[in-house]
Amino acid sequence: MAIWLNQQAADFEARFKAFLTTKREVSEDVNAAVKSIISDVIARGDVALADYSLKFDGLDFNRISMRVTATELDEAYRDLDPAIRDALHLAAERIEKHHRRQLPKDDIYEDAIGVTLGSRWTAIEAVGLYVPGGMASYPSSVLMNAIPARVAGVPRIVMVVPAREGAINPAVLAAAKIAGIDEIYRVGGAQAVAALAYGTETIAPVAKITGPGNAFVAAAKRQVFGTVGIDMIAGPSEVLVIADRDNDPDWLAADLLAQAEHDTGAQSILITNDETFGRSVEQAVERQLKRLSRNETASASWRDFGAIILVPDLEASVPLADRIAAEHLEIATDNPEALMAKIRNAGAFFLGRHTPEVIGDYVGGSNHVLPTARSARFSSGLSVLDYMKRSSILRLGAEQLRQLAPPAITLANCEGLDAHARSVAIRLNPEA
Amino acid sequence: MAIWLNQQAADFEARFKAFLTTKREVSEDVNAAVKSIISDVIARGDVALADYSLKFDGLDFNRISMRVTATELDEAYRDLDPAIRDALHLAAERIEKHHRRQLPKDDIYEDAIGVTLGSRWTAIEAVGLYVPGGMASYPSSVLMNAIPARVAGVPRIVMVVPAREGAINPAVLAAAKIAGIDEIYRVGGAQAVAALAYGTETIAPVAKITGPGNAFVAAAKRQVFGTVGIDMIAGPSEVLVIADRDNDPDWLAADLLAQAEHDTGAQSILITNDETFGRSVEQAVERQLKRLSRNETASASWRDFGAIILVPDLEASVPLADRIAAEHLEIATDNPEALMAKIRNAGAFFLGRHTPEVIGDYVGGSNHVLPTARSARFSSGLSVLDYMKRSSILRLGAEQLRQLAPPAITLANCEGLDAHARSVAIRLNPEA
Repeated sequence: MAIWLNQQAADFEARFKAFLTTKREVSEDVNAAVKSIISDVIARGDVALADYSLKFDGLDFNRISMRVTATELDEAYRDLDPAIRDALHLAAERIEKHHRRQLPKDDIYEDAIGVTLGSRWTAIEAVGLYVPGGMASYPSSVLMNAIPARVAGVPRIVMVVPAREGAINPAVLAAAKIAGIDEIYRVGGAQAVAALAYGTETIAPVAKITGPGNAFVAAAKRQVFGTVGIDMIAGPSEVLVIADRDNDPDWLAADLLAQAEHDTGAQSILITNDETFGRSVEQAVERQLKRLSRNETASASWRDFGAIILVPDLEASVPLADRIAAEHLEIATDNPEALMAKIRNAGAFFLGRHTPEVIGDYVGGSNHVLPTARSARFSSGLSVLDYMKRSSILRLGAEQLRQLAPPAITLANCEGLDAHARSVAIRLNPEA
Repeated sequence: MAIWLNQQAADFEARFKAFLTTKREVSEDVNAAVKSIISDVIARGDVALADYSLKFDGLDFNRISMRVTATELDEAYRDLDPAIRDALHLAAERIEKHHRRQLPKDDIYEDAIGVTLGSRWTAIEAVGLYVPGGMASYPSSVLMNAIPARVAGVPRIVMVVPAREGAINPAVLAAAKIAGIDEIYRVGGAQAVAALAYGTETIAPVAKITGPGNAFVAAAKRQVFGTVGIDMIAGPSEVLVIADRDNDPDWLAADLLAQAEHDTGAQSILITNDETFGRSVEQAVERQLKRLSRNETASASWRDFGAIILVPDLEASVPLADRIAAEHLEIATDNPEALMAKIRNAGAFFLGRHTPEVIGDYVGGSNHVLPTARSARFSSGLSVLDYMKRSSILRLGAEQLRQLAPPAITLANCEGLDAHARSVAIRLNPEA
């Protein structure tokens, strides 16, 4: 059902190019609606939040409090299936350990002429995490967004989550508790993003908003960008598997389907140098599809966007992988590092035959928030750095200023900025 | 002419809040025009570029080539005033030395149970630098944008610059040559951004676009974001000077005016604990204003957006500085490090009495592309990291998979993703 592309076919370049540029997302234009919701939250604050929550989530803040109480959090944690709780703890611990290594070091030094230069990193003062409601309300995403923020040292982490009639997935609350979040509000959609960006009587504003959401949330994040920071706008997910014939076709078929079940717009691609092996994987996909609870979603994704690309040898996959710039890239060969070293663009590499991408979704320790839709060409997965910012530092004494003043004045004059020139010159000569 | 705010006055909070939220930019809505230009460049490529260049820049590609030739570059460099050329070389060398220290290190390691985890940094494959034309065509900005890209190892750096009737500021060309850029096109505006993002017959597409521009350029960057990466959208510049009375009022007045001459929307703020000193600075500003060639711009900026804030002691400036989150923060005291340590939000610190911000604009070595309009709360100045991206790496063996499989399967099932669960389980038990 997926398409086949043969790198040695005459029409390959044209077909590959068309494949790369196929749109996998229907972009709803919700900008006008979102704009009006944001203005309303700015103008009416909590009252607007209450109105939208009643309208969109059937949730009445006269009956259920906007803020989740400490007791609710404790109960969700306590009542969770112990196996899930343990798995969340294990995931949290591994995520934290890995992300601690990402903490940047300040670098403050004196150069050859005695100028002090430096880079100082500080945590962002307050961050808001958007957690989707309903089917896409994933406890793993709470950990992946919150733990890097906590490791960064963000003093205030706020979570917002839409709550249909007040209900929040207890595993999401338990994950929040494990991640150390205690400020959680039952609001979602564009109104939640507006509240985080501009503040209301109940919700103090934050400086950055991260986390996935639907078209309204994505549009709201774009609109408030500038007032606050935002993370990337996540698109539909994709996996690229590069594999030789020495793999169990069933394993790789399962990996392709794990991606496909996310979303009808998800994309699963196999690149192999063995046509027979490719056919076996294709058959395994068809077989396994029948057994999936999300059969319809996965079938649509595989039918519309899946692909098997045949290459003469795996080396030839390198330029294709760079152009695909996959969110997830599995290299299922004996020496995956050698191939990885040649590939520039991928959100995350999963190496060898025993590293299904799903391990990275949950318990690998690395982050599962990764650049989608070819954006791995220019961006990175979520990390501790996304919750910090760097200030540069410069300090001159009188002697260093005397040395650097002439070229600075020359360049300021060259640019026609005479107040710039004077601000340096006046320190050397009061008559300047 | 600037406003005075006294932190101990009863109405301070209200006035400071109003001051912070004053809009300093008239935002033109050019989105529709930009959208049509981008579509046109996608559809007609070079022909569209030629049409817009003729229309907006009076530039005929039948007479002057779109691409700047190597000879033109060499001549611009050769014919430049040697003092300017030397100053550009000195600036370039200092910028390069400082930015080399920002190169991130890969971190690939094995954890306690034998899982290989890692972060690998790679340069972005191709980057486009937008350089404005006319008055705002600054050679220093070419260095500040291009050198970090080169240090990052970006293999292809392209520059676009609008050229009124073909002319480009020779200092800009010389700076490009010094920065090692040889692919330069005479195109500007939204059409140049579209060409960089989507490519034309002459200009191959890039993966990220950086550099400042007018409202059309900013709107185009927002619109192509996602197809390519972009840097921040720069707003009007600002400086905050925190100073005690032991400063020469003329020096600090000159620093405030260096900011104000940029743009009528620029903002210069002085915080001091000494009212008499504040008055002296204010008088010095008025005196110096008269001598500036950009008197009108600087006067308007100081009148409309300048401020002197009086605090009882300099410690009290800390929360104000964090809320202002200035692009440039000068601390003109004897022990500026002590105050800096308490301030979270600033794009760049300029410490002591001999570090006018202007040194950082040109020859300090740190980058002058910094977060404006309060965005230092959540973002950083331009650095080598902006031209790189990070891929995460995960590798398990059979034994590690056996250990991590159960919690991964538990979480996948908890999230209702059974293809995820199967992709792990099938490797342990073919009957899964």
